[in-house]
Amino acid sequence: MVSQIQPLELHPDRLFSSDPKQRELSRALYKTVANLPIISPHGHTDPSWFANNECFKNATELLIIPDHYVFRMFYSQGIKLEDLGIPRVDGGQVETDYLKIWHIFAANYHLFHATPSRMWMDFVFSEVFGFTEVFCPANAEQFYHTINEKLNSDEFRPRALLKRFNIELLATTEGAGDDLVHHAKLKGTGLEKTVITTFRPDDVVDPDNWKFQETLAKMAGQTGEDVHSWNGYLNALRKRREFFRQHGATATDHGHPSALTADLTTAECEKLFATVLSGNATAEQKELFRAQMLTEMAGMSLEDGMVMQIHPGARRNHNLQVFQQFGPDKGCDIPGRTNFVEDLRPLLAKFGTASDLRIILFTLDESVYARELAPLAGHYPCLKVGPAWWFHDSPEGMLRYRHNITETAGFYNTVGFNDDTRAFLSIPSRHDVARRIDCRFLAQMVAEHRLSETAAFDLAYDLSYRLAKEAYQLTK
Amino acid sequence: MVSQIQPLELHPDRLFSSDPKQRELSRALYKTVANLPIISPHGHTDPSWFANNECFKNATELLIIPDHYVFRMFYSQGIKLEDLGIPRVDGGQVETDYLKIWHIFAANYHLFHATPSRMWMDFVFSEVFGFTEVFCPANAEQFYHTINEKLNSDEFRPRALLKRFNIELLATTEGAGDDLVHHAKLKGTGLEKTVITTFRPDDVVDPDNWKFQETLAKMAGQTGEDVHSWNGYLNALRKRREFFRQHGATATDHGHPSALTADLTTAECEKLFATVLSGNATAEQKELFRAQMLTEMAGMSLEDGMVMQIHPGARRNHNLQVFQQFGPDKGCDIPGRTNFVEDLRPLLAKFGTASDLRIILFTLDESVYARELAPLAGHYPCLKVGPAWWFHDSPEGMLRYRHNITETAGFYNTVGFNDDTRAFLSIPSRHDVARRIDCRFLAQMVAEHRLSETAAFDLAYDLSYRLAKEAYQLTK
Amino acid sequence: MVSQIQPLELHPDRLFSSDPKQRELSRALYKTVANLPIISPHGHTDPSWFANNECFKNATELLIIPDHYVFRMFYSQGIKLEDLGIPRVDGGQVETDYLKIWHIFAANYHLFHATPSRMWMDFVFSEVFGFTEVFCPANAEQFYHTINEKLNSDEFRPRALLKRFNIELLATTEGAGDDLVHHAKLKGTGLEKTVITTFRPDDVVDPDNWKFQETLAKMAGQTGEDVHSWNGYLNALRKRREFFRQHGATATDHGHPSALTADLTTAECEKLFATVLSGNATAEQKELFRAQMLTEMAGMSLEDGMVMQIHPGARRNHNLQVFQQFGPDKGCDIPGRTNFVEDLRPLLAKFGTASDLRIILFTLDESVYARELAPLAGHYPCLKVGPAWWFHDSPEGMLRYRHNITETAGFYNTVGFNDDTRAFLSIPSRHDVARRIDCRFLAQMVAEHRLSETAAFDLAYDLSYRLAKEAYQLTK
Repeated sequence: MVSQIQPLELHPDRLFSSDPKQRELSRALYKTVANLPIISPHGHTDPSWFANNECFKNATELLIIPDHYVFRMFYSQGIKLEDLGIPRVDGGQVETDYLKIWHIFAANYHLFHATPSRMWMDFVFSEVFGFTEVFCPANAEQFYHTINEKLNSDEFRPRALLKRFNIELLATTEGAGDDLVHHAKLKGTGLEKTVITTFRPDDVVDPDNWKFQETLAKMAGQTGEDVHSWNGYLNALRKRREFFRQHGATATDHGHPSALTADLTTAECEKLFATVLSGNATAEQKELFRAQMLTEMAGMSLEDGMVMQIHPGARRNHNLQVFQQFGPDKGCDIPGRTNFVEDLRPLLAKFGTASDLRIILFTLDESVYARELAPLAGHYPCLKVGPAWWFHDSPEGMLRYRHNITETAGFYNTVGFNDDTRAFLSIPSRHDVARRIDCRFLAQMVAEHRLSETAAFDLAYDLSYRLAKEAYQLTK
Repeated sequence: MVSQIQPLELHPDRLFSSDPKQRELSRALYKTVANLPIISPHGHTDPSWFANNECFKNATELLIIPDHYVFRMFYSQGIKLEDLGIPRVDGGQVETDYLKIWHIFAANYHLFHATPSRMWMDFVFSEVFGFTEVFCPANAEQFYHTINEKLNSDEFRPRALLKRFNIELLATTEGAGDDLVHHAKLKGTGLEKTVITTFRPDDVVDPDNWKFQETLAKMAGQTGEDVHSWNGYLNALRKRREFFRQHGATATDHGHPSALTADLTTAECEKLFATVLSGNATAEQKELFRAQMLTEMAGMSLEDGMVMQIHPGARRNHNLQVFQQFGPDKGCDIPGRTNFVEDLRPLLAKFGTASDLRIILFTLDESVYARELAPLAGHYPCLKVGPAWWFHDSPEGMLRYRHNITETAGFYNTVGFNDDTRAFLSIPSRHDVARRIDCRFLAQMVAEHRLSETAAFDLAYDLSYRLAKEAYQLTK
Repeated sequence: MVSQIQPLELHPDRLFSSDPKQRELSRALYKTVANLPIISPHGHTDPSWFANNECFKNATELLIIPDHYVFRMFYSQGIKLEDLGIPRVDGGQVETDYLKIWHIFAANYHLFHATPSRMWMDFVFSEVFGFTEVFCPANAEQFYHTINEKLNSDEFRPRALLKRFNIELLATTEGAGDDLVHHAKLKGTGLEKTVITTFRPDDVVDPDNWKFQETLAKMAGQTGEDVHSWNGYLNALRKRREFFRQHGATATDHGHPSALTADLTTAECEKLFATVLSGNATAEQKELFRAQMLTEMAGMSLEDGMVMQIHPGARRNHNLQVFQQFGPDKGCDIPGRTNFVEDLRPLLAKFGTASDLRIILFTLDESVYARELAPLAGHYPCLKVGPAWWFHDSPEGMLRYRHNITETAGFYNTVGFNDDTRAFLSIPSRHDVARRIDCRFLAQMVAEHRLSETAAFDLAYDLSYRLAKEAYQLTK
């Protein structure tokens, strides 16, 4: 491993094909979209940042500890999560010397060669913090102090960064029981249409969710409904959706283990709900309940116009020891197969032909792109394919997405890019990667005479900006 | 969306790599196959066209209404099938103003950017009708009238087009109960060896087929067999195969939901058949019956030498509302997973080592190319891999096919190209796409020194022409 | 088929991209690794070759009859295995005229166009035997006699080839009951650290293995343990692992039908083992036993430090007739789906967080690369992804591997290349293909500004040499 200091240069042609014809076309296309405002309709930044506008405190705390994309790689190489300062659920001892953690980061930065994490991080170092050297052990401490210093300045406060990043819209994601105080605080600041929430009811529709009973009780208080009757429960959800819409939400989000949907009778629903509430539901009954709730949510979307996002297929907390010691979202969610064709049938039989319903499907199982998602979205009026997600939110992942989706679903059954991130500083970089890869794909189509140049310029704009706004009804 | 008129030019290098070395090799290879006669051994054109040789009537009626590749895309964007003139099964009101439908087509032509439908349609506009402008709302009406005028001329009669398209052989596909009057009418015209039929018995071997009982009864009349006894039923099928062979058929075709096969005893078959006839068969029994019938058909192929095609994996009529209102083949068939390795075992255990049996396997599940189909066809003497099919009959689909199949199965366990289309005018375009993509693939292999240039020229000919003739025994 | 004689030239740029920029970078990278010693930590060469150092006898016997990659292709085209001299299990008549078989090989050599078998064989003809013409019917006999003559010379004895091939380490694979006489014979020759064994216990942990009872009995004699008690059985396995380590083994290998693991109680294990021994175990019980044994083997690896390799997913002997007539390893193993995410859970729940355990996962189901293996290896400390395997040990297979694995698992959760071959003469060629493809991949990353040139040179060395040594603990 060479650790001598090298210049950090983000090459203007990065991620473009090295074929001269394609590269030139990519450049021309990219030039027209590079500076478009960012639409980020799905993500996980913390709304308190924008509500309170306090300075971020520390490089390690901001860039490593919350980012499971980063620390999972270190963990895979035998570095303990405790040594990376990841908090234990039992409050047990973990490393608190942030500089020491930062040095681990530097010493292992080579693990990220050719990964998106490396690309995002280099962008943050170069474009956000202005470094001109490649991060390495020799300059790690200097980076650390410089970053901390900058974070402490007004130009690096969350709202200043929102503006500097040219973010036109940023949707956060909150659980159904959230009181949305941060979004409420934004009202009247001029940012209430910039930072909006998204309704994510997993904690009250998934009996396996660790906060299920707690959130249910909370929702009872918030809505005055009898959440232990099926009808009251549904009404409570309706009221919560309404509350979220008052805080800007245009969309809901659903992160189920599978894409299973169901269409039970009201009597069956009432019985199943009672079983779920009793705490005696079997795994199958819980899965059926989640399935029914996806269909209920689609029905409510038809009522209130909210866009529905389904993010299925993560086998959450696959490493049970890590989950028990460190809690959820610690890099041990692993994708599994998803069967959209069979699983979505009940929902689609009920609502599939409604052209005023909008369901955006995401997947962690790329084998479904050409086989299932493109044919489904290329037929059903209500279905759109969400962008390459999570492990596949990467140059190769995005290329596979376009190459597999486009011929059957076209471009207009897709919805632009989502960054889906809690790493606020990486947002410009992530959108930049998506724009570059889309331009690269379009350039290839033009270079191979499969698309006209005129159309490519229109599409570059649509994929970078317009489709996201339209798909999430942000133009209203 | 720019709608100003642009020149329509089919670039001579379209679909080739933009890498200069590969492009030049592609050109050289393509030049030797571009004008070879078309062998179309599997498709769905209407034999009455060639039997009666009447003029096609109308652009909309010919190019939009029968083409579910086209109208499914419009439907996915919220345009009603009624507004596209798709006939309802109840005879209910649909749009009959063909020019109005044509305008919808023009207004939404951009939906097809970078799809094969767009490529085929541009070819038809340019090469078949001689247009020099890109189709758009501004010239839509002119296109419409010009096409209708041309369709009304002798040069655009079906037989004239057959000749102009340089079609050496065209196989249509008919159900087991079809009386083949159109093929009979071709006898003595000199076209009886050009337009042949294919035996597709789905309607009498699939108890879920809506015409099952009807076709069974018809077959009884046609063959004089007791089709309600297992033995009589099999004999009736033998006679129908013979009748189809008398009308040129060299192949059978089987479009089952899965690739499942079975090898039951005669007693089990008799019992299962009786259950199926009773109308009380469960879903599993019906699946088992289809499975057994694939094995029976393979056995009959060994007897009579017909090539067997298996096209499994379409989840037919996934959108039940559309099926109920508009019938089958309305763009709502969705692919699903297919498990060739387990499903074909019983058939292969019985007939797999017979080198005088020929079974051509197609798939809608590309994940099986490298994992299942190439290893199976690279071992079993009776198995060949059919070309990229349906949703995958596209530039990207064909490239994935060659990249995934070749290293394990080679080229000689594949069978050339099928267009599988009911869109007669698009046939030259579809074969042109296949030839270009094959030449592109071969050019890449040569450019990367993985194949000799000499071999590439041989293979270009084989993939474009020879293998299809041999695989379907059209040289006899 | 052109059969005129053509010059045989292995182009120095073979397998590199034809893009000039990428090609030039590939050349520069490859130049630094082309002559590195070969580390072959997993393969199936015969240790008696190196122990006895006798001359190989015959071209057909060495290059065709044992190589199921080769004869499966001929079989798929209708050539009988008997005519290729493949021995029957019943000792029945097969072709013994090796020159006649060699002529079949020549007459059908075109079947391998663009396959890895062709690439390996051309390399053997050119680099190992020095031929300057492409193999074809016209020179087949000359090739045959020249090869036989060379094989009979001292320079072509196994140990001379080991040296000439620059093989630093070669691991063979032996069953648990093997007495390792050939490895014992190597002690004191200076080759005992060059040719080592690998512990493959399938024949004593898989009740479906045809040698299960036989090997169990043998192991009883070898270890003095009561192999019919659960505890004695485990101790016997421990002793055999120790015996293998004394003959150089650093790794174990497990070729199960699936990746299923289990974590039963001791009482359950004892009961299951008794059922297995009784010969009355159901298919499910046998699968559960194999599953439990993977977990037991992982536990023993933690005890003794051996690296564990899991090669799941082959549906062995799919063509039952061929198996019955010719035995195992006759080209009729077909890949199937593998579900690593669910199947490995029990083992990982028990040992997954141990950073001093090393499990290398291989797959025949490429759909799991990005969806399962990269996320698993990019998280669990004990897991690494083995190289592209068997049907996927090919240029395209290796490219898919890197493109699908790297972004989530990085390079450092992979383990370099394995040739996995019994075709000794092809070993240099196989490693050459792997090095070229890795350099090509790295060159693309550099050309697209996704990786620095400095890092690419480090990685070329690591992927070609260092990672294999480290992963298999060959540096100790």
